[in-house]
Amino acid sequence: MSTTSDDQAQTQREQALTDKVVASFANTPDDRLREILQAATRHLHAFVREVRLTEQEWEAGIAYLTAVGDITDDKRQEFILLSDTFGVSMQTITMNNQARGNATEATVFGPFFVQDSPEIDNGGDISGAATGMPCYVEGTVRGTDGQPVPGARIEAWEADDDGLYDVQYDDGRVGGRAHLFSDERGEYRFWAVQPTPYPIPYDGPVGQLLAAAERTPMRASHLHFMVTADGKRRLVTHIFVRGDSHLETDSVFGVKDSLVLDFDEQPAGTPTPDGRPVDGPWSRVRFDIVLADDLAG
Amino acid sequence: MSTTSDDQAQTQREQALTDKVVASFANTPDDRLREILQAATRHLHAFVREVRLTEQEWEAGIAYLTAVGDITDDKRQEFILLSDTFGVSMQTITMNNQARGNATEATVFGPFFVQDSPEIDNGGDISGAATGMPCYVEGTVRGTDGQPVPGARIEAWEADDDGLYDVQYDDGRVGGRAHLFSDERGEYRFWAVQPTPYPIPYDGPVGQLLAAAERTPMRASHLHFMVTADGKRRLVTHIFVRGDSHLETDSVFGVKDSLVLDFDEQPAGTPTPDGRPVDGPWSRVRFDIVLADDLAG
Ligand SMILES: [Cu+2]
Ligand SMILES: [Fe+3]
Ligand SMILES: [Fe+3]
Repeated sequence: MSTTSDDQAQTQREQALTDKVVASFANTPDDRLREILQAATRHLHAFVREVRLTEQEWEAGIAYLTAVGDITDDKRQEFILLSDTFGVSMQTITMNNQARGNATEATVFGPFFVQDSPEIDNGGDISGAATGMPCYVEGTVRGTDGQPVPGARIEAWEADDDGLYDVQYDDGRVGGRAHLFSDERGEYRFWAVQPTPYPIPYDGPVGQLLAAAERTPMRASHLHFMVTADGKRRLVTHIFVRGDSHLETDSVFGVKDSLVLDFDEQPAGTPTPDGRPVDGPWSRVRFDIVLADDLAG
Repeated sequence: MSTTSDDQAQTQREQALTDKVVASFANTPDDRLREILQAATRHLHAFVREVRLTEQEWEAGIAYLTAVGDITDDKRQEFILLSDTFGVSMQTITMNNQARGNATEATVFGPFFVQDSPEIDNGGDISGAATGMPCYVEGTVRGTDGQPVPGARIEAWEADDDGLYDVQYDDGRVGGRAHLFSDERGEYRFWAVQPTPYPIPYDGPVGQLLAAAERTPMRASHLHFMVTADGKRRLVTHIFVRGDSHLETDSVFGVKDSLVLDFDEQPAGTPTPDGRPVDGPWSRVRFDIVLADDLAG
């Protein structure tokens, strides 16, 4: 028997197996579940066949997923980190928040949002317990038609200058998070702290994988936004700091060019927009938000 | 802006993200790890993009993997069950034990093999504590050149007629497993019990998935073999019972046509090949084994 005919027979055997597994899901009553299970089967099999996965590698893969499961608990979600670092989370966000015209782009939600954040007046300060260089944030919320959106609810949250969110401390502090509403002209402004880079948790299997790939666990410096308004699609996004050294290597692939903004640093003594006295340098950034229409609503 | 150009831009954005994640692994020092991580990225992204995974479905997927991790411990390996029921284990086996000429085909190893099984003489009985209808198994071990292989080590193991392996009882019993050696003519024979079907563990997330897909957790009735001999590739396989009702729906896709054999049932009183007295009916099967050369050895 020639090697070539052996190889052809082998290819047929492998394809027949894939086809058989796909067919095994054919009776799934739920159409969408069936579609997902069959597609998952095809891509999983295509993967193992393409790389010619060895039995030892298969065992290593099982052991890796087991370790990801072992470290996961109520407070630590290593499967989400794995999804994040393979860009699967960001791809899901990208697909489900398709850009419409000039609408502001979305990015990952992240694990640090908290319901019922403090409410502040327009022009107030979200910093609370969070330390860092003061940063003045301002902009206008509009629709894709250019019309201002008054009364839009703006949630903002960020890490302090130690790279930690308030909920990562165990003293119950609240800081670096608040919500406010755009005014009758769709404008908003608030004080925050200048964003700084921080690592995703890297003391587990995902950190090991990043290390083995010589990838950094650092996220580019960012300030989270979630903006909601009647008749508009919910926007979950970040703004990033132009010049930040982690923009190209953000560990969860959250950076989009349109979200990288100038945070202009102001020397100590520079008068502030609202006359608030500030010791030392501060920064300012303008983030004009464009909300897509809510097609479902 | 037209919908078409929006759609083209969206496709480009999604592809650019996939490319960026693939590129993020480019510095992985280990060539093989890099190949695997990049291929995993491409197939994962192709999957989520093909099915247009929603954010709710992504969350359900994370919750599912978390549940698989939760039930997994030293004794229960739900990730392996997941791999088995998606045919990934069998595909890995199929790739790494490519058929060579007329060599006997391989199938899944399964979780119930035990090192240091009892040794029996050729013609002995592997049943031990295992109950079931007696079954006489015989055959010849040969190379692909047709030459008999004397002294081949044959491990055989199976469930009892309650569908349980000895190690699934907590009383330390040993039964339905043993090893023996082929004789100077390459022949072997032993008594066992007639294989019966049994389910893979289905009280966890994998069982839920099988139920949602209206798939059975049952494995087709089988007897496990592992055959090793100097200069030959290790063979891990099963033999299946022709006529078994689960051959087409084996939950781990272990069945291959060439491994389905006639287990001929003998009425009570039929004389046995070795003169052993048997109460009631018994069965017999012939399994001629062909070992591929060990290309590595
Ligand atoms: Cu694929
Ligand atoms: Fe963050
Ligand atoms: Fe078995």
